[in-house]
Amino acid sequence: MRRFKCVVSYDGTAYIGWQSQCKNNSIQEKIEAVLHRISNEEIKAVAAGRTDAKVHAYGQVFHFDTDFYLDAPRWQWAINGYLPKDIRIQSLEEVGEEFHARFSVKRKQYDYRINLGEYDVCMIHYAYQCRHVLNVEEMEKASKIFIGKHDFSSFCANSLEQFPNQVREIEDIVFSRDKDILTISYRGKGFLRYMVRMLTATLIEVGRGRLTLEDVSKMLDARDKDSCKHNAEPQGLYLMKIEYYQNNENPLEIEEND
Amino acid sequence: MRRFKCVVSYDGTAYIGWQSQCKNNSIQEKIEAVLHRISNEEIKAVAAGRTDAKVHAYGQVFHFDTDFYLDAPRWQWAINGYLPKDIRIQSLEEVGEEFHARFSVKRKQYDYRINLGEYDVCMIHYAYQCRHVLNVEEMEKASKIFIGKHDFSSFCANSLEQFPNQVREIEDIVFSRDKDILTISYRGKGFLRYMVRMLTATLIEVGRGRLTLEDVSKMLDARDKDSCKHNAEPQGLYLMKIEYYQNNENPLEIEEND
Repeated sequence: MRRFKCVVSYDGTAYIGWQSQCKNNSIQEKIEAVLHRISNEEIKAVAAGRTDAKVHAYGQVFHFDTDFYLDAPRWQWAINGYLPKDIRIQSLEEVGEEFHARFSVKRKQYDYRINLGEYDVCMIHYAYQCRHVLNVEEMEKASKIFIGKHDFSSFCANSLEQFPNQVREIEDIVFSRDKDILTISYRGKGFLRYMVRMLTATLIEVGRGRLTLEDVSKMLDARDKDSCKHNAEPQGLYLMKIEYYQNNENPLEIEEND
Repeated sequence: MRRFKCVVSYDGTAYIGWQSQCKNNSIQEKIEAVLHRISNEEIKAVAAGRTDAKVHAYGQVFHFDTDFYLDAPRWQWAINGYLPKDIRIQSLEEVGEEFHARFSVKRKQYDYRINLGEYDVCMIHYAYQCRHVLNVEEMEKASKIFIGKHDFSSFCANSLEQFPNQVREIEDIVFSRDKDILTISYRGKGFLRYMVRMLTATLIEVGRGRLTLEDVSKMLDARDKDSCKHNAEPQGLYLMKIEYYQNNENPLEIEEND
């Protein structure tokens, strides 16, 4: 048996998200169907993390195990040949069995894109179309509140009963601007369900002048599921990059909730 | 009766094009349904020109006539309230009856976008994903051959029997680059069916080194429906801007084929 690591990009617009569910239009399912078609084996694609419906990826990672005889370049070529145009394997390499797409994650980067310019019909699936003038400087100040290790219960959709550990560490939040597009990049080991979108919605509220820095600090400290009422639209969110621990470096922390 | 001029943007991905046909998913039909819903009148939306399936617009223009009592800002507000998110009225103003969205056109601009970088899953509906290295300098040289007044029969899908006048004038063709995206902008009074896409496909062949400048000159001179075998994909094409003659300036040339 050999294990392969794949970096995959997808336009999430047409899909219910990464994970297979009873409805049959997930990215995982499209990929597993192709793996089966090529090898006639039942192969599971194990991803670094789920992405929600309409969320995009330029650097999702999954691994799969197989006994089929293809080498890495031929696997990549064959998979891309059968995948729909909006899913594309960027790279594929053989890895040791100690590699695990989810458990070996060192750091993830999510980007959130906001269109600050005119409403753009060709961008409705790819950026949040913001109708309001945003004070970006104030948003950057507010983002500093989130950096570091915090209990992010206030910014997570999951209940504390089911997922008692909602402490995560954000390494940095970087703002960049390309013409009308403001990108907020979040880096950290792991993120809770809806966390990036709830943090972004909160920063947008700051940018609109509807929340102060003090309000944001209070929201974070409250650890209260009712304190953040907004969740930024999924189509602005991109899973950009996943870094992995090298052999032996991996502390094998398992976070069930990421 | 009053006449209104509208500038409209749309993402053409989901539509069969501007013009209503037996199948029911045209942009014209969406707009006319909204005009009817607001006014309960049967109102026709008369556009500057058709766009084909999957072609986008940032500056399509149409006019409509109505007896309904709304003023221009309220018309715009009401239409945008009912339109799907991928169609948006940019501006709407009352005009005199001498204005005609199609017959008063002075100049149109079409852009064609080519992604010269890595295959981008989020751009498959918005730019031609070029897998080949293109010699852009050579393409620019070739584009000069098309500038001016020519019989573009070689670069038009319509038969000469049905449309005997296939002479058009291209005022300029401008190349610009923004990171990986090469944009070729064509300006002229009118363009034949598929003309911009066939010219672009020809320039791409030059960029790939499969046609010389001499070949292109010969193709143009041939006035032969079989000389251009390629038609660039519709999703790279954008109707960007339409300029109109002012009152009395309009020579009222009617070109049935545009």
